Amino acid sequence: MAQKVLIVYAHQSPCSFSAGAKDAAVEVLKAKGCEVTVSDLYDMKFKATATAEDIIGEVKNAEHFRYAQETKLAWEEGRLSSDITEEQRKVTEADLIIFQFPMYWFSVPAIMKGWIDRVLTPGFAYSQEKRYSQGMFKDKKAMLSFTTGSHEPMFSANGIHGDINVSLWPLQNGILHYCGFQVLAPQIFWAPSSQTPEARKSMLDDWCTRLDKLMGEEPLSFPPLDYFDEKHFQLKPDVAEKFASQEFGPALGVHLGKPLPHNSQVKAGV
Amino acid sequence: MAQKVLIVYAHQSPCSFSAGAKDAAVEVLKAKGCEVTVSDLYDMKFKATATAEDIIGEVKNAEHFRYAQETKLAWEEGRLSSDITEEQRKVTEADLIIFQFPMYWFSVPAIMKGWIDRVLTPGFAYSQEKRYSQGMFKDKKAMLSFTTGSHEPMFSANGIHGDINVSLWPLQNGILHYCGFQVLAPQIFWAPSSQTPEARKSMLDDWCTRLDKLMGEEPLSFPPLDYFDEKHFQLKPDVAEKFASQEFGPALGVHLGKPLPHNSQVKAGV
Repeated sequence: MAQKVLIVYAHQSPCSFSAGAKDAAVEVLKAKGCEVTVSDLYDMKFKATATAEDIIGEVKNAEHFRYAQETKLAWEEGRLSSDITEEQRKVTEADLIIFQFPMYWFSVPAIMKGWIDRVLTPGFAYSQEKRYSQGMFKDKKAMLSFTTGSHEPMFSANGIHGDINVSLWPLQNGILHYCGFQVLAPQIFWAPSSQTPEARKSMLDDWCTRLDKLMGEEPLSFPPLDYFDEKHFQLKPDVAEKFASQEFGPALGVHLGKPLPHNSQVKAGV
Repeated sequence: MAQKVLIVYAHQSPCSFSAGAKDAAVEVLKAKGCEVTVSDLYDMKFKATATAEDIIGEVKNAEHFRYAQETKLAWEEGRLSSDITEEQRKVTEADLIIFQFPMYWFSVPAIMKGWIDRVLTPGFAYSQEKRYSQGMFKDKKAMLSFTTGSHEPMFSANGIHGDINVSLWPLQNGILHYCGFQVLAPQIFWAPSSQTPEARKSMLDDWCTRLDKLMGEEPLSFPPLDYFDEKHFQLKPDVAEKFASQEFGPALGVHLGKPLPHNSQVKAGV
């Protein structure tokens, strides 16, 4: 059966490098027989803000509106607004989601954060029991593909912006892996606007080469849910003991006061 | 002269704990003689998405629209949309900015990310030369004040979400400190919705106590700009050498492969 890919794409201009990266993904993946859907957020004028308008009909508690509780209920009752429901349908069908964006302020642009805040509702994307390695989307893959304004060395462990692995942790662990996705290594296009046209073309060529075998890639490594106790979600004593004598902790965020595992957020198998 | 405080506030409900934290800040700071302004983003229906509509008149390159370049030019020429200009005026006047929000997906809600993406334009908030400790806003203070859904231990270095210090780095270093702000320790309200009314009241009381002396607090520590060379923005060899024999690197992100300094993103003086 054909693999289905959803590209959640956020750039204002069809002439941008980000658009080129998105177009390359569409082309290569379609040529491989994948069904590819693009959510072009700016073109869709995708609503970014989490409001009561995201719920059709009456909210449960208008006086004290709580977005998570209200959208969980609305999801259960099929009363989420049609733009959210449509994106949730695309997520449900997808085997792989690629988030293609220019990095804004060490993170995704607001319009893409809006997609995350509004589409990944409780009930649909996670529950208390279904998170991380036991998450809703554990049979799906997801990845970040983004451009930066800064050159790679600035995002190193002795560069001015600090280690890119640190800045990727909240996005890759806190959003993608939280929902269970197997997180593929990010595709980082370092400062394309500072490169020559030839270098930009070469970056896209490398991306096409990677796309050809993307679906078979090993995902990044995150600690399995059963490393943590079910009450306080702390590393179980026997697991902590196992790592006590090791060089690194189980993950970048779950570091146990040890040095961070090198490149754990940008390379598989580390 | 009265100190001026801007509270950038993002919650949909005036009955929320976040609203209570915002109201407490307004009350305590006004009682101390501060001038307090609140930007209530949901109430203002603040536009979150970065589009060409943010520029009045013609954009320089409509065919290949680049948000950063276009808004930098528009800022220089006084052609940013009035909602952005108004927020920039508030920032210019403020001595302290408090960002009050519920944490959404390990970060700020999209509407607040939109404020960051749109208001902190190049030229106004930073330039190649004026960043970090030499940043535009180095005479101002800023801080995050937020609620979580999870309990504190889950955000520890052996908790399931990983060390909160890691998740705060991109926000505090990459946005606030990047613009030069002296970053005050974050005010973290751990899982107020899981607490008793008495515990919630106690959390707000603690916040009021802190607010009383907030303006005199020592900020968090970040490495000064002159630790880095001006060409590739790498730690200068003599500085790297100085840290080689130390337990920790100069900052959480600039960790040099060493263990992370404990609580450097949540406490001053570490």
